[in-house]
Amino acid sequence: MRMYDIIHKKRCGGELTREEISFFINGYTGGSIPDYQASALCMAIYFRGMTERETVALTDCMAHSGDTVDLSCFGELSADKHSTGGVGDKTTLIVGPIVASLGGKMAKMSGRGLGHTGGTVDKLEAIPGYRTSLGVDEFLRQVEKIGIAVIGQTGNLAPADKKLYALRDVTATVDSIPLITSSIMSKKLAAGAKNIVLDVKVGSGAFMKTAEQAEELAHAMVKIGKSCGRNITAVLTNMDVPLGCTVGNALEIAEAADVLHNGEESDLKTVCEVLAANIVSMVKKIDYDAAMEQVRETVSSKKAYEKMKEWIAAQGGDISCIEDPQKFAKPQLEIPVLADRDGCIASMDAELIGDASVILGAGRASKEDVIDHSAGIILCKKTGDKVKKGETLCRLYTNRAASIESAKELFCKALVLSDAPLQSQPLIYKIIR
Amino acid sequence: MRMYDIIHKKRCGGELTREEISFFINGYTGGSIPDYQASALCMAIYFRGMTERETVALTDCMAHSGDTVDLSCFGELSADKHSTGGVGDKTTLIVGPIVASLGGKMAKMSGRGLGHTGGTVDKLEAIPGYRTSLGVDEFLRQVEKIGIAVIGQTGNLAPADKKLYALRDVTATVDSIPLITSSIMSKKLAAGAKNIVLDVKVGSGAFMKTAEQAEELAHAMVKIGKSCGRNITAVLTNMDVPLGCTVGNALEIAEAADVLHNGEESDLKTVCEVLAANIVSMVKKIDYDAAMEQVRETVSSKKAYEKMKEWIAAQGGDISCIEDPQKFAKPQLEIPVLADRDGCIASMDAELIGDASVILGAGRASKEDVIDHSAGIILCKKTGDKVKKGETLCRLYTNRAASIESAKELFCKALVLSDAPLQSQPLIYKIIR
Repeated sequence: MRMYDIIHKKRCGGELTREEISFFINGYTGGSIPDYQASALCMAIYFRGMTERETVALTDCMAHSGDTVDLSCFGELSADKHSTGGVGDKTTLIVGPIVASLGGKMAKMSGRGLGHTGGTVDKLEAIPGYRTSLGVDEFLRQVEKIGIAVIGQTGNLAPADKKLYALRDVTATVDSIPLITSSIMSKKLAAGAKNIVLDVKVGSGAFMKTAEQAEELAHAMVKIGKSCGRNITAVLTNMDVPLGCTVGNALEIAEAADVLHNGEESDLKTVCEVLAANIVSMVKKIDYDAAMEQVRETVSSKKAYEKMKEWIAAQGGDISCIEDPQKFAKPQLEIPVLADRDGCIASMDAELIGDASVILGAGRASKEDVIDHSAGIILCKKTGDKVKKGETLCRLYTNRAASIESAKELFCKALVLSDAPLQSQPLIYKIIR
Repeated sequence: MRMYDIIHKKRCGGELTREEISFFINGYTGGSIPDYQASALCMAIYFRGMTERETVALTDCMAHSGDTVDLSCFGELSADKHSTGGVGDKTTLIVGPIVASLGGKMAKMSGRGLGHTGGTVDKLEAIPGYRTSLGVDEFLRQVEKIGIAVIGQTGNLAPADKKLYALRDVTATVDSIPLITSSIMSKKLAAGAKNIVLDVKVGSGAFMKTAEQAEELAHAMVKIGKSCGRNITAVLTNMDVPLGCTVGNALEIAEAADVLHNGEESDLKTVCEVLAANIVSMVKKIDYDAAMEQVRETVSSKKAYEKMKEWIAAQGGDISCIEDPQKFAKPQLEIPVLADRDGCIASMDAELIGDASVILGAGRASKEDVIDHSAGIILCKKTGDKVKKGETLCRLYTNRAASIESAKELFCKALVLSDAPLQSQPLIYKIIR
């Protein structure tokens, strides 16, 4: 078998066999197939697509290219959640404890943020003492004991995906549905959970800008998950505005704790309930409405809040910060951004707001950047809100005085004020099972 | 400027600017742009194509990526000929002396053969003493003095094309019209001739299998040549059968000398006359029919034959081999292949016959192979000919006894015998000016 022939076949629109895909993935991971042939194949796949059979084979080969986590000890109870990435997306911090408090086993490996989107591991590191790195045994024991553990990616999970994604990232071959599908799903399969909920973000702050694109991706991922024997649901959620009212690591931890502690209604709470109810429905094999009822009860009774503290304490985190967010380290500067006229917020570009938070220190522009966990943005107004001239639109938190002007500028660029109120957008576009 | 953005733009169907193409070619040749980004761009170009403006820019940047030959001392008289490669293609050996004997200045750099197609430099090296490597000054002095010099590619001509072609060759991105066009034309432009004739081969032994593909390529090359200020004509010629009756280096030299010495009509002679008349028409700025008349006269009067000997002698070649081909070294084995039944030759696959000659030692299967100049095939029958059982179809010449059976097998596989005579194919499909 020759890699040349595999590229040529795909370029001409042929369907690759499992053997051909396996030859490519093993050779590429092992180093016998060079980057320049892999990138040519990825570009051919971008143009020609892949059949479901090809995508299943690619996902499966990548999932088995390294270690896999064995969660079979949890039977049908193991659960995982994946977000395609957004701004202000702290749902794992809320959904995890809800599911665990209802008997699910959340054995979750999370990523770090890059660019305008944040990562759960970065957020958790804002909590003094929290250990994002546990050995596999400790990880599994904690899940067994309290129902949840959230750590950074450990071991050598789906190394083929890691290598291939880095290549796609610099060769303009990221946005191909079969390649995205196999990248996400190979990691989920290797991570071992029986039940998976995918939060597919749609809008200006998301990778998928339109509901159509997002739906295509969601369908593809759900198909692959089922083909590989998992229970899986995809929820398409709005990412035209940041989720919740905070962007930045400590700020988001505080907001997540607040949702579970005070239980006030918000876009963030609604999205978390839907995600959690979908997982609970799969884990407990009950219908969605019954699952939603249990989710609401575990939040209102504060069982989920207690589970959150139990989890964070188990991983060494200082829960006094959860109980009183004032205990988080404060940045030196807190700058309000004021409205320069009356109006109604017609839209706020989530990606630009994410970029503003990166400038303030809350994220990484490049992989080597160090995060300032105290930095970020609190949104005082969101899309649909009326504002009066002089009212506070948001507050910027930072230790970088030099970054304030450009962050302000980005924030104001993100905001569109109109004179008339506009139709609100859906928060949940669709649920695909 | 970032290579990523250039790949992305082309992938999305955008038109690259001259600056972007120049950034790519300079960066790739200089080593700052890696192979994996170049191959991704080539694959995107394969799918999206290139506008004429882009192809001109790409050709021009590659032509100027290294040395260029200055033929301005010859004014409007300098001429070059390029063949897209075929089996038994010895036209340069015939066309060159014809043009030179009529006052044109053939300053020609030729290539070596690979796979089923031969190369002029390999053929010339069959002549004892012939020097394929001359310094630029000596090369130009010879052209000035006798009107023709043919050498191997010298200096650092279009190194960008060399590097990019090697990459395309292993990433299934060779057969893209704009990439082929810019590859061929960048070398022709760098080689400096004012007048260029392109012999675009069509058929089983050619890179372009159909007249439509060949015509598309020919039009693209002619456009680029004109855009860059050259006089240029493309001739589409048949390569469904080998050209002439010999395949193999010394055998082809002898056949070429015979065409100029004896002047018998043949497919080879016709193709050479058409190619030569097109060059002479451009060089002398006379109409095609007048040029053809001069071409026929210089052949029949043996002026072209004398020019051939003058040229070969000037480059150190032993012209006694030209005058008497029996003086070429003989291979140990000469094996006739006989017809196993009566019939008419309906077709003979030129590529398979080329492959058979490679097995006998006349060509290279890989770049490192050493050529046996005495090896090859003499075709005793060609497409359209009637044969009787037991008649000799061809004679195989080789020093490799072990290769005879597989060469025979390939040759017989190449031949289709039918009971009824078939319509003959055109020898010249089209002339594009």
